[in-house]
Amino acid sequence: MAEKLSKGTALIGQSGGPTAVINQSLVGVVEELRASLVKRGIVQRVYGMRHGVNGLVKGELVDLTRYPAAKLQRVAITPSAALGSSRDKPDAEYCARILERCKLVNARYFFYIGGNDSSDTCRIVSELAAGSGYELRCFHVPKTIDNDLMGSDHTPGFPSAARFQALAFMSDSMDNASLPGVKINVVMGRHAGFLTAASALARGTGKGTQNNGPHLIYCPEIPFDSTRFLQDVERVYTKLGRCQVAVSEGIQDANGEPIVATLLKFLEKDSHGNVQLSGVGALGDALADHVKNNLKLTGSKLRVRADTFGYLQRCWPDPSPIDSKEARIAGKMAVKHAARGQMSGSIAITRAKGRLYKPEFNLIKLSDVAAKTRHMPQHFFDGHCDVSKAYLDYLRPLVGELPVMERI
Amino acid sequence: MAEKLSKGTALIGQSGGPTAVINQSLVGVVEELRASLVKRGIVQRVYGMRHGVNGLVKGELVDLTRYPAAKLQRVAITPSAALGSSRDKPDAEYCARILERCKLVNARYFFYIGGNDSSDTCRIVSELAAGSGYELRCFHVPKTIDNDLMGSDHTPGFPSAARFQALAFMSDSMDNASLPGVKINVVMGRHAGFLTAASALARGTGKGTQNNGPHLIYCPEIPFDSTRFLQDVERVYTKLGRCQVAVSEGIQDANGEPIVATLLKFLEKDSHGNVQLSGVGALGDALADHVKNNLKLTGSKLRVRADTFGYLQRCWPDPSPIDSKEARIAGKMAVKHAARGQMSGSIAITRAKGRLYKPEFNLIKLSDVAAKTRHMPQHFFDGHCDVSKAYLDYLRPLVGELPVMERI
Repeated sequence: MAEKLSKGTALIGQSGGPTAVINQSLVGVVEELRASLVKRGIVQRVYGMRHGVNGLVKGELVDLTRYPAAKLQRVAITPSAALGSSRDKPDAEYCARILERCKLVNARYFFYIGGNDSSDTCRIVSELAAGSGYELRCFHVPKTIDNDLMGSDHTPGFPSAARFQALAFMSDSMDNASLPGVKINVVMGRHAGFLTAASALARGTGKGTQNNGPHLIYCPEIPFDSTRFLQDVERVYTKLGRCQVAVSEGIQDANGEPIVATLLKFLEKDSHGNVQLSGVGALGDALADHVKNNLKLTGSKLRVRADTFGYLQRCWPDPSPIDSKEARIAGKMAVKHAARGQMSGSIAITRAKGRLYKPEFNLIKLSDVAAKTRHMPQHFFDGHCDVSKAYLDYLRPLVGELPVMERI
Repeated sequence: MAEKLSKGTALIGQSGGPTAVINQSLVGVVEELRASLVKRGIVQRVYGMRHGVNGLVKGELVDLTRYPAAKLQRVAITPSAALGSSRDKPDAEYCARILERCKLVNARYFFYIGGNDSSDTCRIVSELAAGSGYELRCFHVPKTIDNDLMGSDHTPGFPSAARFQALAFMSDSMDNASLPGVKINVVMGRHAGFLTAASALARGTGKGTQNNGPHLIYCPEIPFDSTRFLQDVERVYTKLGRCQVAVSEGIQDANGEPIVATLLKFLEKDSHGNVQLSGVGALGDALADHVKNNLKLTGSKLRVRADTFGYLQRCWPDPSPIDSKEARIAGKMAVKHAARGQMSGSIAITRAKGRLYKPEFNLIKLSDVAAKTRHMPQHFFDGHCDVSKAYLDYLRPLVGELPVMERI
């Protein structure tokens, strides 16, 4: 099918919140382009967009055609978008400017690494190009720590962020056992609970692990009830003398209202102005205040602390080895599909049936993933504040080896 | 000198904020006791105190005399205090109860792993014992991520927490370069700036690293000026289009007032109650609001974010290899000094003169370290918002190998 391919340049961009392995995908695209389409004389230039389509429309491109291979290897293992990322969500007008720029540099291959918004950008650009009779192959390479792309078993970036949660909760559970109290950790994920749920891996397996944290896990998929939350904490604390809580930043009440707002109705705003609606630590602080003010346990002075993990979740430089590998392959596969003559699509990782973990890389339609959000399925939950064995079985092969911790 | 040693039991406890390597010291004490004093029949039982002296006075002890060696090895590499820790700061009356309990189990060897408060506990107990004619050998094994013990070049626990800062700021700087803006990271350390200053290691060395973050570093040793801070951020942002800031949780103004309180005078308390005095993210949020509200840069919409690293700083399970080793040795050395007939003391690590890094372990007086605080010396600073080459030279050998990151 190679004869069908137009000669021209290739564009690559990164978009949305960075991950620990998004550069693996970038390097995968560049390497595969150089090994195939550049080598065959079909692609003359490989251009990186500075800060995604934002840089593209400004003409801010960097020539990667002969970028040194050794440097490329170091880029691959560097967290966060090496080309720069963008939060722009282009509409049809913006996409028309993108297409304009593509024509200006005779781009015939367009690769965009990002989440569901980025796949939507790909889709619009692809449709605009087709509508104007300009041959442009548009491919979306998946990336998101939220794991919320439709059509995928999991998304590059998620396993590494999940690994971070496992390590963080494991260590923090040891800290919580050292100086007992209620510890609340707020995890990224506004709409999907996959990442918060990954904290469950911290418990480990086998003898002596049954009391390890996290003891309570709250995801956005299940309405959060502030009164029931107190009962949950009381139950765990009464039994273990401590309680570690994983809570998604996106938890909502039954009416879809964010929990910080809900908690304001519970909490008396004291003279120091302790309660705040916004700010990084708002949810964690509000939940901690809620426990401090409303949970009355006889005979014990309750120590309550909250941490909000922040950006380290998405950039910690200890990625899951499988994630690194898959992110690289996802980039390469997008190029392979382009080289086979496909016009557009998104790479989706699925899991081969069988006892051992084996990923498969498929090409799916852009419209099947664009601007859609996947949530944690029901069978990944166990009640309202825990995950199921099915979820742990799903997750465990993805995150790499975890330390085994031992208390006396 | 062995004939001088009283026969009896040995007590070991852990105290204060946990670290990633405090269990190395615990295992060092236990191993060395078993290899020497237990073997020689001088110590019959090795007891661990549950939650430090808090457990001791309640009689909560765990027998470690024959604790399985394989499990002990796993304990050593587990972050946070495996015996449990305590925040108690015993006064003379409390220490009298401690001595009472020591007599009850015929303890003749007392090892306490902790910071300056723990060395003070050791000192009081040691003096009480001597005063009552009871032979009790009391040794303090140093531990603190704050690095603020007198008489030491550095303190076990600090190199691993410093390593965390290097990794965190390095990755977060890549994130900040991907999606440019002002990023403020709040680091532990109420009185000493060593840990915040460790963020400077994130810059790396060599070609292409000169613009890496952190760009501004604020420690408690230097009075923080809110107006000058804005000027600093503006200078960096104007030059680089981004700015990563490391700030110690303990920064104060020239009058010794905490900065959150000072900033309230600057910031208008808006109707959403954005400004708060307490709460985990208070300082980071207040600084971010300060920049957002008061830094007017033409032609750019300023993106300002803040993270407060929280407990992960002291328990992250990727310790500095040198720190792990030194923490283990510090525990062993305390036992060796006891076995040589010393009555009391604290282990202090100093650095041998010479080109290559080489630690030395000394015994210093408890009164030389007890309840004292060391601060960053002047020659470790470079101006009011950076560290000197001398500090980097001091720190670099301690933290282990760091990744090399590459941007395009």
